[in-house]
Amino acid sequence: MKCLGCQLANQLEPAQVVWENNEVCCILDHNPYNEGHVLVLPKRHVRYFDEFDEHTASSVMKAITIITRAMKELFQPDGITICQNGGLFDELTHFHLHIIPRYEGQDFAQFYAEDHELHATEEKQLKETKIKLIKVMQKQGTC
Amino acid sequence: MKCLGCQLANQLEPAQVVWENNEVCCILDHNPYNEGHVLVLPKRHVRYFDEFDEHTASSVMKAITIITRAMKELFQPDGITICQNGGLFDELTHFHLHIIPRYEGQDFAQFYAEDHELHATEEKQLKETKIKLIKVMQKQGTC
Repeated sequence: MKCLGCQLANQLEPAQVVWENNEVCCILDHNPYNEGHVLVLPKRHVRYFDEFDEHTASSVMKAITIITRAMKELFQPDGITICQNGGLFDELTHFHLHIIPRYEGQDFAQFYAEDHELHATEEKQLKETKIKLIKVMQKQGTC
Repeated sequence: MKCLGCQLANQLEPAQVVWENNEVCCILDHNPYNEGHVLVLPKRHVRYFDEFDEHTASSVMKAITIITRAMKELFQPDGITICQNGGLFDELTHFHLHIIPRYEGQDFAQFYAEDHELHATEEKQLKETKIKLIKVMQKQGTC
């Protein structure tokens, strides 16, 4: 299993997991656009939406729902953007869908323009965010 | 029914529909980033992913799968981006998910930065694109 996406999704590489089931794993992005930026990865190697089996497709939707709900309560963002860049624009070469809390006045074009390493976040901070997100999901009864 | 998204999704306003079922309607964006840029809209008024019932959530995934597969064959893009901007960043104030074929060398930051009206496309051209997409879906047995 050489693919980094497969390793992250199956916890063979360190990652801050906020939610998972048999088909998908949700982790915090190491270079978050904002605090709480989550990636949804399938555990099986997939590149595009149209390669999902029905169970995994349903799990991706479930993950988006659960994470969105928790984000709204925890961060009270002005909006949430969901995006997935497939093919040549998937630098991990493994399907990963971003769930990103956003705030008024921020220029989201930067998400596609800038060097993401600028936002690299300490493991300690990511762990604190993970704990906060999981607490909200527990309160909401979704994990 | 004053919401433009509801009107488009339920065909009370003119739109080039490429696929639909009981829960969702897929139309061509009038200001496409590239030819074949599709919007997936629920027929019921929804703002965020976590407001979907299970049938609609499943229909959104089905729509993404069908459209992605058709786009790959018809346009052979270098990649496809799926994105949905919720809350303050949803200018239609009705859930709409973009499915966008992309090509190497294009700066996708522009999608978030520029005036979309620059890409406004004639109805005749949109209709031709719709016919091409539907023909591919028919060939693929998905519509």
